[in-house]
Amino acid sequence: MDKKLAQLKTMLAEIVDLGQAAAILGWDQQTYMPPGAAEARGNQQALLSRILQEWSTSPKLGKLLDQLKPYAESLDPDSDDARLIKVTARDFAKATCVPTEFVVEFTKVTSRANQAWVEARQKSDFSIFQPHLEKIVQLRQEYATFFPEVKHPYDALLDDFEPGMKTEEVKAIFNALRPLQVELIKAISARPQVDNTFLHQPFDEKKQWDFGVEVITKFGYDWHRGRQDHAPHPFTSNISIHDVRITTRVDPNFFNPMIFGTMHECGHALYDMGIAPRLDRTGLEGGASLAVHESQSRMWENLVGRSLPFWQHFYPRLQEIFPGQLGNVSLDKFYKGINRVQPSPIRVEADEATYNLHIMLRLEIEIAVIEGKLAVKELPEFWNTKTKEYLGVTPLNDAQGVLQDIHWALGAFGYFSTYALGNLVSAQLWEKINQDIPDLAEQIRAGKFEGLLGWLREKVHDHGRKFQPQELVQRVTGSKINAMPYMHYLQEKFEQIYGRD
Amino acid sequence: MDKKLAQLKTMLAEIVDLGQAAAILGWDQQTYMPPGAAEARGNQQALLSRILQEWSTSPKLGKLLDQLKPYAESLDPDSDDARLIKVTARDFAKATCVPTEFVVEFTKVTSRANQAWVEARQKSDFSIFQPHLEKIVQLRQEYATFFPEVKHPYDALLDDFEPGMKTEEVKAIFNALRPLQVELIKAISARPQVDNTFLHQPFDEKKQWDFGVEVITKFGYDWHRGRQDHAPHPFTSNISIHDVRITTRVDPNFFNPMIFGTMHECGHALYDMGIAPRLDRTGLEGGASLAVHESQSRMWENLVGRSLPFWQHFYPRLQEIFPGQLGNVSLDKFYKGINRVQPSPIRVEADEATYNLHIMLRLEIEIAVIEGKLAVKELPEFWNTKTKEYLGVTPLNDAQGVLQDIHWALGAFGYFSTYALGNLVSAQLWEKINQDIPDLAEQIRAGKFEGLLGWLREKVHDHGRKFQPQELVQRVTGSKINAMPYMHYLQEKFEQIYGRD
Repeated sequence: MDKKLAQLKTMLAEIVDLGQAAAILGWDQQTYMPPGAAEARGNQQALLSRILQEWSTSPKLGKLLDQLKPYAESLDPDSDDARLIKVTARDFAKATCVPTEFVVEFTKVTSRANQAWVEARQKSDFSIFQPHLEKIVQLRQEYATFFPEVKHPYDALLDDFEPGMKTEEVKAIFNALRPLQVELIKAISARPQVDNTFLHQPFDEKKQWDFGVEVITKFGYDWHRGRQDHAPHPFTSNISIHDVRITTRVDPNFFNPMIFGTMHECGHALYDMGIAPRLDRTGLEGGASLAVHESQSRMWENLVGRSLPFWQHFYPRLQEIFPGQLGNVSLDKFYKGINRVQPSPIRVEADEATYNLHIMLRLEIEIAVIEGKLAVKELPEFWNTKTKEYLGVTPLNDAQGVLQDIHWALGAFGYFSTYALGNLVSAQLWEKINQDIPDLAEQIRAGKFEGLLGWLREKVHDHGRKFQPQELVQRVTGSKINAMPYMHYLQEKFEQIYGRD
Repeated sequence: MDKKLAQLKTMLAEIVDLGQAAAILGWDQQTYMPPGAAEARGNQQALLSRILQEWSTSPKLGKLLDQLKPYAESLDPDSDDARLIKVTARDFAKATCVPTEFVVEFTKVTSRANQAWVEARQKSDFSIFQPHLEKIVQLRQEYATFFPEVKHPYDALLDDFEPGMKTEEVKAIFNALRPLQVELIKAISARPQVDNTFLHQPFDEKKQWDFGVEVITKFGYDWHRGRQDHAPHPFTSNISIHDVRITTRVDPNFFNPMIFGTMHECGHALYDMGIAPRLDRTGLEGGASLAVHESQSRMWENLVGRSLPFWQHFYPRLQEIFPGQLGNVSLDKFYKGINRVQPSPIRVEADEATYNLHIMLRLEIEIAVIEGKLAVKELPEFWNTKTKEYLGVTPLNDAQGVLQDIHWALGAFGYFSTYALGNLVSAQLWEKINQDIPDLAEQIRAGKFEGLLGWLREKVHDHGRKFQPQELVQRVTGSKINAMPYMHYLQEKFEQIYGRD
């Protein structure tokens, strides 16, 4: 069996290496590729995807896994090898359920839909995108049929982003969360509002960039294995555990995008950089799920980066860098300003208190659409009505409403909920960390992040994809994913900022 | 046959696409890759190389070519399809002559040799590199035996860089050139020397960069299909005809490296960008040979970029950018300064008049070593003696002597002569261009380069790899590669600068 296992690992290493090559092409495409190369890049990526698909579904790999499954049963079920066989067998089973012609068709449809979405958003005209979205919904419904064992068709879509997670579970979590979130926002809106106008003024771009670098260097971002570049829509490229690149966006007239974006991407990167080296080139690198990944980015962005202890440490430094802009702004005022709650129709501009409501709206729509209970053509109106109901605001037009996100144009149904789940998981972990590191706030106030990062590495990062998200959260916190810690966190934080009646 | 030909083109398109992916990884490695990713990059590249090797030597490809060869005979021999089949069949025959184990062994040996060379050069200690170089020479000799039909073993090595070129031909060309070059240098050294100290002073890096961009934009470098980045050892990445990237080096205290390096790499890029779009993804993209490629880079760098008409146009602009440094330096003084002849033991610092002598020294050594007439351990002494003989100077140490170039550590025997041949070809083409465009000098003096670029596109670039270098030069100029036009160019130019007795 040792020989079979070695064969499996060799095959996986090659699949991983090829995936890394594709990841480099993807990073380049979003950073430095000349525009004229777009079509050529499409051909290169299509070829690599095809080889990857062939290798990941090869009968040879399937046979090897069949031979190894009984062996995995004989091992410690939490051992790397047992998990490797289990996770790979699951990946293989899923990949082989989907016919190649379907994959090809889906790629073509989403490629065209993407272009249509860009135009539709520009012109704020949903009708341009509608037929493409209808086709995508139909293909997503068809996709679910390749997995006849699922209880709900949406389970099949969710599983691609949150392995093992069920529609029922997500609905239950969000149903518990929604009324509490709506109530919180109402309470906040009834209180005197905080000022954040000082964040909207000119901030030198180079100085902003350097400050962001200073912060994430203290967080522990490893420049030997990473780099930061500019991108209009910041992202993290997890090329390998030895090469995790981040990007940021610097707005010369608004301080927030750079600093919170940089900390967010750094959070993703710290996860990918923290995977155990022994899992390198096995396919178990990367995060347990998108929600667990998002728990890391949101933790560094929000639970750390929008906290008072963090700014008790960094604010004097920031005032030193921007004396003209911030010299006369007190720490208290700054802290409240960066945490200002302001319901907006735009998800990516949402604050911590309103963010999840944007997600719930999307989840409701996705489930209803996949179930066939809501027609694509009804989306704009449904969207606006629900936005008003949850957030008390109405989008000015479809560009700022139903057309604001690219996800559906990429065919990514099932993705959005991972953003909200990530928020919830970040608070669950945060509760546990504070139990294990009672002086965490003092450490952060002193600009020390080794304790926090060390804890995350040991409890979360190290395991890579060994555990499914619910299992991982349960192991670390003692509970499955649930909304209460995040709601407590929000309630306490915003009562402190906005006061209580 | 149409179907077979279409099959061939599909196979070639995939080989090309995969090669492009590898080229992006190579570009990234030399520009933005974090240092910690070096080993992972090695794995990714090794995998892509292996797939490329498999595809390029697949029996399926061989069978298809065998079936198509008779068909090619029935076509116009200069047609794209006839040439495609012929060139591909030649590539295939060469690739299948070399056993895979040899390729693997060679890759390992050169990888280690590369590291040893870095250390040896740092410590200026040839003994560290010697055993590695001995192994490489042995493997290069073995490589030649895979091609039993060659007249001279060195032919097999040369052919990888100059398809169809023979050792005899190169020797004959260089034998004609050497005495003339040596005589020219002696004549120059007997004349009053020119001053270039004004080139060695602080020049703002950003302003230098922008000036280089201004120049190559006028040359016709297409930024839609390219970009420029910094690199310690500038190079051009020909990823595809839609994506040709250049790099440059800016020395804050010396003007020459940026401007002449930028024009040089731009010359390479204009060639790659000028290949006919109909040859895209056929394997006929890229240059006819390294010498023909170098003829383009050297033409834009030297025949254009170190010419008086060029600086008659650009010097006022340069003085405007650097008034403190150049305001009081006359055009005549500047022109002579950038053309100063100064024999040096270092090839990459060589001027136009001495450059080829560095190459001849290397060619002599390579042939003698491959023939077994010169032992590797004798190289340092041989090198220093010949340098003194040809250039009148002696290297201070081995780091500045036999260890100065990386090529042998990479196993690249047969490469050096392409540099000198490129110089010769550039002058042959230049003679012909001046016949076809009689007012070329005036055009350049007016900052107009469309005429020149258009000529090069039509006569040289368009054809890609359709013609072998000797054939291409013959077609365009009416003669095979020869030394006379370059010698005339040098004699005339340097008599004008240094005067005559």
